[in-house]
Amino acid sequence: MYLGRLFVLSGPSGAGKGTICKELLKNSERMVLSISMTTRSPREGEVDGINYHFVTKEQFEENIKEDGFLEYAQVFENYYGTPKQLVIDTLKSGKDVLLEIDTQGAMQIKKAYPDAIFIFILPPSMKELRRRITNRGTEDASTMELRLREALTEIEYVEKYDYAVVNDQLIVAVDRVKTIVRAEHLKVAEGIKDIINRYKEDENAIPID
Amino acid sequence: MYLGRLFVLSGPSGAGKGTICKELLKNSERMVLSISMTTRSPREGEVDGINYHFVTKEQFEENIKEDGFLEYAQVFENYYGTPKQLVIDTLKSGKDVLLEIDTQGAMQIKKAYPDAIFIFILPPSMKELRRRITNRGTEDASTMELRLREALTEIEYVEKYDYAVVNDQLIVAVDRVKTIVRAEHLKVAEGIKDIINRYKEDENAIPID
Repeated sequence: MYLGRLFVLSGPSGAGKGTICKELLKNSERMVLSISMTTRSPREGEVDGINYHFVTKEQFEENIKEDGFLEYAQVFENYYGTPKQLVIDTLKSGKDVLLEIDTQGAMQIKKAYPDAIFIFILPPSMKELRRRITNRGTEDASTMELRLREALTEIEYVEKYDYAVVNDQLIVAVDRVKTIVRAEHLKVAEGIKDIINRYKEDENAIPID
Repeated sequence: MYLGRLFVLSGPSGAGKGTICKELLKNSERMVLSISMTTRSPREGEVDGINYHFVTKEQFEENIKEDGFLEYAQVFENYYGTPKQLVIDTLKSGKDVLLEIDTQGAMQIKKAYPDAIFIFILPPSMKELRRRITNRGTEDASTMELRLREALTEIEYVEKYDYAVVNDQLIVAVDRVKTIVRAEHLKVAEGIKDIINRYKEDENAIPID
């Protein structure tokens, strides 16, 4: 039975992982984005099942009890988590799952599903990261310093990832992640025994001249 | 320090690994073919240092004693082996090394250098493999059966490889191996600590506004 692969993308805010994810999913029939579950209220324009699966605190906690998350976290009042069954069902259907998540979440996934492929998106430099965050114009100076410190803390986690992709030019970075996805599909996996058997049966079917 | 990667290609006779290797090396400045050492005499047109490093039996056995091979084998009267130092020096220079070798040799390499990347080239089917060997026109019926049995024995080793590439269309197979090579260069490796430090220094160099 062929299984899809779970690709986990992390990287500091400003590294561009969101844009890379969008590009990866464009025209992709083989890859599906994992939608998180959350207890926070939908914001203007957010749609249930597209941006998040919006649930009540009770539903979320019930799901925790049932070991229903690949990872979850509580941020202030709200829960956020990756529903396990949805990911597993998609993988079983033969499609890849793409998961954009912070390093803490990724480390939880690594424990729950070590077969996942962990990709870290790096900014070309801290200077460039600062420039990108500045250009958003939403952060004051002290928040900016905090963001950059957080980015450095995140970057140290790159060691625990399988692949590192520097996002200097978006098109190059996307191509690199696609290369990783393609290569991972060439990895020798569980299904290889069936393939070996196919060669054996194939050969037995040929009459000896 | 950046190190090149050692790519080991195996596959049954007729799978087309030789042609794939040639295509990989074409216009490649980053990849070098590993030249085997042998005690057999050069055939018409063979050049020392290009087809093989031709040495005496005494030189070869001296090299064995000095643990100078990544792998070696004795075939009838002659020795064949992969000189360790040459491979290591090339990897240290930052270039990749490509090694085309049978499964027995590959398994020896795996012990000596587990960081190598093992790629298995599969024929599209046993039927097609038979057709390819027949077209060479060099084998009689009983040698042909032997070749196909050997091919099946080789194919069972695919399980021990990192990647499996079916050579249905040469251009596609070459592209797949190139994809593997590119992805392997995006793997998080030893040098990652230096990269993390570069981000830290970079950030420290920026004056806080």
